[in-house]
Amino acid sequence: MSTFNRVAIVGGTHGNEFSGIYLLKKWQASPALIRRASFETETLFANPNGFRDNKRYLDCDLNRQFLPADLANMELSNYEQSRAKVINAQLGPKGSARTDLVIDLHNTTSNMGPTIILLKADAFNTQLAAYVSSRMENAVILFEDHCSVEEHYFLCSIADQGIIVEIGPQSQSVVRQDVLDWMDEMTAHILDFVELFNKNEVPELPATVSAYRYEETLKLPESEDGERLGMVHRNVQDADFTVLRNGDPIFTLFDGTEVCWEGDYDAYPHFINEAAYYDNNLAMSLGKKVEIDVIR
Amino acid sequence: MSTFNRVAIVGGTHGNEFSGIYLLKKWQASPALIRRASFETETLFANPNGFRDNKRYLDCDLNRQFLPADLANMELSNYEQSRAKVINAQLGPKGSARTDLVIDLHNTTSNMGPTIILLKADAFNTQLAAYVSSRMENAVILFEDHCSVEEHYFLCSIADQGIIVEIGPQSQSVVRQDVLDWMDEMTAHILDFVELFNKNEVPELPATVSAYRYEETLKLPESEDGERLGMVHRNVQDADFTVLRNGDPIFTLFDGTEVCWEGDYDAYPHFINEAAYYDNNLAMSLGKKVEIDVIR
Repeated sequence: MSTFNRVAIVGGTHGNEFSGIYLLKKWQASPALIRRASFETETLFANPNGFRDNKRYLDCDLNRQFLPADLANMELSNYEQSRAKVINAQLGPKGSARTDLVIDLHNTTSNMGPTIILLKADAFNTQLAAYVSSRMENAVILFEDHCSVEEHYFLCSIADQGIIVEIGPQSQSVVRQDVLDWMDEMTAHILDFVELFNKNEVPELPATVSAYRYEETLKLPESEDGERLGMVHRNVQDADFTVLRNGDPIFTLFDGTEVCWEGDYDAYPHFINEAAYYDNNLAMSLGKKVEIDVIR
Repeated sequence: MSTFNRVAIVGGTHGNEFSGIYLLKKWQASPALIRRASFETETLFANPNGFRDNKRYLDCDLNRQFLPADLANMELSNYEQSRAKVINAQLGPKGSARTDLVIDLHNTTSNMGPTIILLKADAFNTQLAAYVSSRMENAVILFEDHCSVEEHYFLCSIADQGIIVEIGPQSQSVVRQDVLDWMDEMTAHILDFVELFNKNEVPELPATVSAYRYEETLKLPESEDGERLGMVHRNVQDADFTVLRNGDPIFTLFDGTEVCWEGDYDAYPHFINEAAYYDNNLAMSLGKKVEIDVIR
């Protein structure tokens, strides 16, 4: 019996992240590309009106609307809050979902390459991480397992297993072929792995896999009234997943002053200078580099 | 007597091109940076509501509203059409402007580096091109002199001399330090040159300057009903100002088909995969490489 019977691939959760949207179109034209023998694959275009208006979202970020309390709160009724409830009804409901795995396709303006974000470090996810790493040389594994899946507000947290495929750098509202091809390839590796996992045919894998684990989020320098006073330092720009140590320059103020990072661990920045995070003056996330045991 | 008495530096003509907007703030805090002895420098924030809403524009592209007939047409009354009339009254009027030179600061998501776009190849502009090229190793000179300044619809065409400083790659709605620093440096070189030109102290310059000249604009592959069918080929992505020859791949359709360029000249693509141009499904501009005589 298969562990995974139903897999959903979601694109366009953010309306101006084009790779997933155009891959959905491609796969709808050629469904065999995402078909595997041991499970059903369905696709879902999460925020069509965001795409229509060429915006990340109309009213609020769809990928922050999947906390159980918010899904249950009928007062939350704007466009994305409504889409969240519809998607939860279609793929979920969260907590007892009819979908076993949600793969949610995203782009970032940050230089993160092909990154797979995993929400827990169990047997399935650690084996998946090792498998994808072995098949795709530039794949990056990022664990955001600082809370339970239920406590995550991401769309992919609807299912017991949820994955974010996060690929950049790509400006909002464009399609880059390199980024599209990476997303296409990474998604295929994930589907292949699920097939192997279902059939109990996962190949020999290393005992551990190199990954990053989310630690904290840093804000851009800002004044008391929230005006931006500086930017990401040129040494850090594009240096996603490159180590940042205590005392390294991290920001440059508009008056030229350099600001250094004060931290007590070797940090690996990512989502550096992501355009969508300027809403909240976020500068980057920091992670730790980890060797994760592959659980068999 | 000075040739240039009043120079205007304009930022934020597009509300999500942040470098110029943050440089204006910097220069307002430190006006000496843009002050020169022989002329007055003023600054203008062209589209503040675009910036407020984090959009290129609210109603229409402000940098396409400066044709004389449109400026005179009071029926054209949306936000950017109104801003155009106000800016024309403040810096112009076009045809007999009180401003002698407008420097308009722009960003592109394309990999164009620090580019200066010039609207005519007269003594001032060819000397300026040679001067900036000699001072800034990675500067790119692009002539868009296929029509008269009057016939241009750009904001900088208000004045007899108009320059666009166009720097990328930078995603919309972010600030990159490298891009900001290039814009800052290029603007300083332009102001320095105007000062030398006014004082008749322009140094020895080479007889010619390497540049590109706008030739044509290519659209993305699209269906009869305007749906995008493909993307810029991976070989062309980021290869701004790299030669493209007849038969070279230029687009990849979403079904994998490669489309080659059919042209009878050595083309130099730029504005490749610019996010803002997807509105009209534009893929890139093509130019020719030219050696321009520096007119003394």
